[in-house]
Amino acid sequence: MSTSHLRADGGRLCARLEALGEVGAVLGPNGERGCARLALTDADREGRDLVVGWMHDLGLAVGIDAIGNVVGVRAGTDPDAAPVMIGSHIDTVRTGGRFDGNLGVLGGLEVIETLEQHGVRTRHPVAVAFFTDEEGARFQPDMLGSLVYVGGMGLEDALDVRAADDGARLGEELQRIGYAGSLPCPAAGAPHAYFELHIEQGPVLEDEGVTIGAVTGVQGISWTELTITGQSAHAGTTPMRLRHDPGYVAAAITVGVRAIAQRMGGTQVATVGRCELEPNLVNVVPGAVTMTVDLRNTDESLLLQAEAEFQQLCAGLAGEEGVTIARRSLARFQPVEFDTAMVDLVEATARRLGHTTKRMPSGAGHDAQMLARVCPTAMVFVPSVNGLSHNIAEHTHPADITAGADVLLQVVLAAAVAV
Amino acid sequence: MSTSHLRADGGRLCARLEALGEVGAVLGPNGERGCARLALTDADREGRDLVVGWMHDLGLAVGIDAIGNVVGVRAGTDPDAAPVMIGSHIDTVRTGGRFDGNLGVLGGLEVIETLEQHGVRTRHPVAVAFFTDEEGARFQPDMLGSLVYVGGMGLEDALDVRAADDGARLGEELQRIGYAGSLPCPAAGAPHAYFELHIEQGPVLEDEGVTIGAVTGVQGISWTELTITGQSAHAGTTPMRLRHDPGYVAAAITVGVRAIAQRMGGTQVATVGRCELEPNLVNVVPGAVTMTVDLRNTDESLLLQAEAEFQQLCAGLAGEEGVTIARRSLARFQPVEFDTAMVDLVEATARRLGHTTKRMPSGAGHDAQMLARVCPTAMVFVPSVNGLSHNIAEHTHPADITAGADVLLQVVLAAAVAV
Repeated sequence: MSTSHLRADGGRLCARLEALGEVGAVLGPNGERGCARLALTDADREGRDLVVGWMHDLGLAVGIDAIGNVVGVRAGTDPDAAPVMIGSHIDTVRTGGRFDGNLGVLGGLEVIETLEQHGVRTRHPVAVAFFTDEEGARFQPDMLGSLVYVGGMGLEDALDVRAADDGARLGEELQRIGYAGSLPCPAAGAPHAYFELHIEQGPVLEDEGVTIGAVTGVQGISWTELTITGQSAHAGTTPMRLRHDPGYVAAAITVGVRAIAQRMGGTQVATVGRCELEPNLVNVVPGAVTMTVDLRNTDESLLLQAEAEFQQLCAGLAGEEGVTIARRSLARFQPVEFDTAMVDLVEATARRLGHTTKRMPSGAGHDAQMLARVCPTAMVFVPSVNGLSHNIAEHTHPADITAGADVLLQVVLAAAVAV
Repeated sequence: MSTSHLRADGGRLCARLEALGEVGAVLGPNGERGCARLALTDADREGRDLVVGWMHDLGLAVGIDAIGNVVGVRAGTDPDAAPVMIGSHIDTVRTGGRFDGNLGVLGGLEVIETLEQHGVRTRHPVAVAFFTDEEGARFQPDMLGSLVYVGGMGLEDALDVRAADDGARLGEELQRIGYAGSLPCPAAGAPHAYFELHIEQGPVLEDEGVTIGAVTGVQGISWTELTITGQSAHAGTTPMRLRHDPGYVAAAITVGVRAIAQRMGGTQVATVGRCELEPNLVNVVPGAVTMTVDLRNTDESLLLQAEAEFQQLCAGLAGEEGVTIARRSLARFQPVEFDTAMVDLVEATARRLGHTTKRMPSGAGHDAQMLARVCPTAMVFVPSVNGLSHNIAEHTHPADITAGADVLLQVVLAAAVAV
């Protein structure tokens, strides 16, 4: 049967987003409606229960694995075919929004409901998954559930992770909220394909007036913490030539990594997000500074080049100013490239549906980058208003949500093969 | 009588510094022996009682004024002559040393005791004063007692000042510790001259191997707080060209004011001592930064030039990066120049006693800058080990203390006129 005319019901999808957003709702100072559903808290359980209830309503066979990942499966016509999986997460950061993650999971349910509504059968099963602790806001590392799902982290190690806030053990929190499931993890078999619909969490689509991003991969990430030690001194009595000022060095590094990113261009970004002076007083040259540098690139060799230039910058400044710089790697991930045919499919489908498109990397991490280790994977991005995310003011216009769900529906149909 | 051979007893002076340092003593991690005698606390009362006891032991007529300044007077032979005053303070910062302030007051007592010991009479009375709340660590502004003493701040306003820590009213704390005196403040008459012996609180004398600093004046101070507001954003998903990063602007200002100070040279210094990013997370471009800029110069016109260049720097960066910068002045004092004849006297006396000397400005504020408004004033600096001050590791070698006390004794004799 021809299914190319099928469209998602954006209103229905938005209603589910609203309903899930009420669980752990937080209100901003200007009436913004955000969300606080940290992984494996009571709010997370309540959110999970709501989504699992919807899965049951849609007739899905719901399975829970040993790390709490939940997969609802709609059977296909071929009993031997691996499922086409749609997934994301429903945990949020502490002051998060209602779209990050949730859109991918509820977009999947919308695909299922559209298929049901129109009586469309597919050769491959279609599965909707939400993965445990994608945000990493309570248990680190982030993308933990999908990482364990693809065998990238041992189950026992993951269950032993302690919460950053209250020290709770992940395995016990899973038990406590009733989501320590019986399915094996890592999963027994890989999906046939994996799709994830997600808000961009950045300003590029909005800035360029584009509706659909066909995500080509995920940037590699290099996080470094620097502890710079100099000599605390009186701001009035210490001549410039006798200073060993770690605050100046931190500033020069901040300016320097900006210059590295601008000189390299392309997808290279560089950010100093954290910087703390000690003792942090108006009239005291600081004695020590702790800062972080976040470098990202879609190309591993370029990311290595940025790291090398950053190292040279630090060494030069330390020598010039007479300070010491201790380095600690906080995170290092290589870039992930999505399957080209899958990216082409997203792009072509979006164009066929009349949307403007842009092939673009993701600057943020997603469960999709884990699934890309085991099956052909692609992501569909829709614009974030003002590029905001991890923010209670996070918003995506309903028309863009509908556009994204339509593209998701059509690429799933293409991969799962309507019969 | 000839008094040019008279010398202070450095051991006696050091013993008094030790004894006063035991009041409010704090011990550092490496056995450093510091001091915490915040103004008008119980520890301050105990320190005051000790010093007033020594004043009585030396036969001084002790008077306390309405803001708690204490002056012990040794009579001169001329009933109409105004006193030569030696002064400083005995309050300390929260983690202070045993020399800052205390040396000037106890150096004054050492001068008195030497005169007594040798039966030296002077035409002018010799007074030793300690002023209330020089540090400003508990009650702001700093140098409060000497400021009121010279009529620079109204007594009632000063008594109404509230403590930064517990909100206590200065006037009530004065009453509580028994130091709300009956003498008028501002003082009825000005001293004939004022001398203050003080540790340098900076590294210059030690760095240049000089024993005695003849202080030419006090640098003007300009403190500005900047609040820079940009757009918080995801460190991975926000291209460099779309950023409005107040952290980058703060860093560029920090680098820029360093460059201004180095280009101007002379006594110009520039310090960013405080800098706070919001939200201060590794993977978030900050949305706002608060920072301070401390500019100092001995020349008012040059300080104005530094301020103007700093303003231009801020305006340029705000425009380039698309951020707003709100400015707030935290403090602004014009430079103070000491009486040239008095500075010459200190320098010539130190040389006569065989010490290396350097004419130098003070980068820190002192009670002397207030007294300079009403009488010829000079300061004698001795080296601070490693330039440290406002630090429990503050130290000055006994030989340097003795040298400073000798110079103080001889300049007081010259001004008070031995008879």
